[in-house]
Amino acid sequence: MANRALKYYFDLLSQPSRALYILLEQTKIPYEKCPVALRKFENRTTEFAESVNRFGKVPCIIHGDFKLAETIAIFRYLSREFQFDDRWYPTERSTRARVDEYLEWQHANIRAQCAQFFLYTWMTPLLGMEVDPKKVDRLRSNMVDCLDLFEREWLNGGKQPFVGGRELSFADVVAACEIEQPKLAGFDPRAGRPQLAAWMERVRAATNPHYDQAHKMLYKFTPKEIETPKVE
Amino acid sequence: MANRALKYYFDLLSQPSRALYILLEQTKIPYEKCPVALRKFENRTTEFAESVNRFGKVPCIIHGDFKLAETIAIFRYLSREFQFDDRWYPTERSTRARVDEYLEWQHANIRAQCAQFFLYTWMTPLLGMEVDPKKVDRLRSNMVDCLDLFEREWLNGGKQPFVGGRELSFADVVAACEIEQPKLAGFDPRAGRPQLAAWMERVRAATNPHYDQAHKMLYKFTPKEIETPKVE
Repeated sequence: MANRALKYYFDLLSQPSRALYILLEQTKIPYEKCPVALRKFENRTTEFAESVNRFGKVPCIIHGDFKLAETIAIFRYLSREFQFDDRWYPTERSTRARVDEYLEWQHANIRAQCAQFFLYTWMTPLLGMEVDPKKVDRLRSNMVDCLDLFEREWLNGGKQPFVGGRELSFADVVAACEIEQPKLAGFDPRAGRPQLAAWMERVRAATNPHYDQAHKMLYKFTPKEIETPKVE
Repeated sequence: MANRALKYYFDLLSQPSRALYILLEQTKIPYEKCPVALRKFENRTTEFAESVNRFGKVPCIIHGDFKLAETIAIFRYLSREFQFDDRWYPTERSTRARVDEYLEWQHANIRAQCAQFFLYTWMTPLLGMEVDPKKVDRLRSNMVDCLDLFEREWLNGGKQPFVGGRELSFADVVAACEIEQPKLAGFDPRAGRPQLAAWMERVRAATNPHYDQAHKMLYKFTPKEIETPKVE
């Protein structure tokens, strides 16, 4: 079995890295932690591309000698290889389809909008470049529209407790980890969105202590005016 | 069974609409064609949002009374409900994971880059707005890098006949339909990429006559300097 060990490559400052970390911890799948420091560009080396992930990104896995990238593809692979509890990927036909729908929809919506705002607003000054306030406004506006849409359609304005319906699934974990990210850039997605705020708290409560473990660094680097949980 | 009829909402000028059309035709799943004219904004009406797809997009389906959006989620749903031939979604564990990996990777890569170039270059003049040549150059450059990456990594520089490996799968259909799109805006993705050109021809040959049926309008509107098949 040694050659079928599962290695997980991740950085907890990456949104989808946190989502898979929470899944792995919650499902108790045995795995080896392989942290990759994005801030040191450890994912950009030739060595990493050749021996870990040809696309130079995290998260990714190596299972035995099989390399796999892409969070949602890894989630599906783990669901088949380790047959974890159905709660993460419900078997009821319409609920499973709704979870699938979110996992595809999010790429060009919640993921794209929250990540673009975060990357531009947070990274540009770090790279010593000047921030264009008009671009920040445009990116923030797109993100705001998308968060409003999420609250309205995916949480049905609060009438639906989780993305897939009545129960938590991996779709909620993916969504929450993305929506946490703009806090780093001084934007609180919960402000003015009570239903979204209540849902985030439900996701956190349902997946703790692993949710807070995954977000410990994010909480630490979030500007003080945005409230975050105290984590040791 | 009448209440479990499958209705397919699509426009063949939409890349993923073509991909699902080809799948439905090839698998002989019984369905009702519900064309939606994007050029007439038929997808933007309140009626469409309320009775068909809350996100106002195509493709989407209604199966019985169950509404579902998102191409890849629809593909997965159809694979479970209709249990079509394994070739579209291979069951071998590593091949299935590789197909899944492509279907997730493409969102922020082939889909995003080809669609952004197409939309800006083709739609801007139609909307009576001025095209910024610098923006066209930047979008083209991003698309070119992505197509090169696709040829190098997903076709293994031509050593791998299809995206998932030795056989065609739905991943190839999704990829080819996206890569056809920039032809409309005068960009031939095959030029200078013999391996990609050969792969596109393999995908077309393996899925005809439905590939050409799906692309008939695209061929018609492609500028004359880019060669397209003659289709009646």
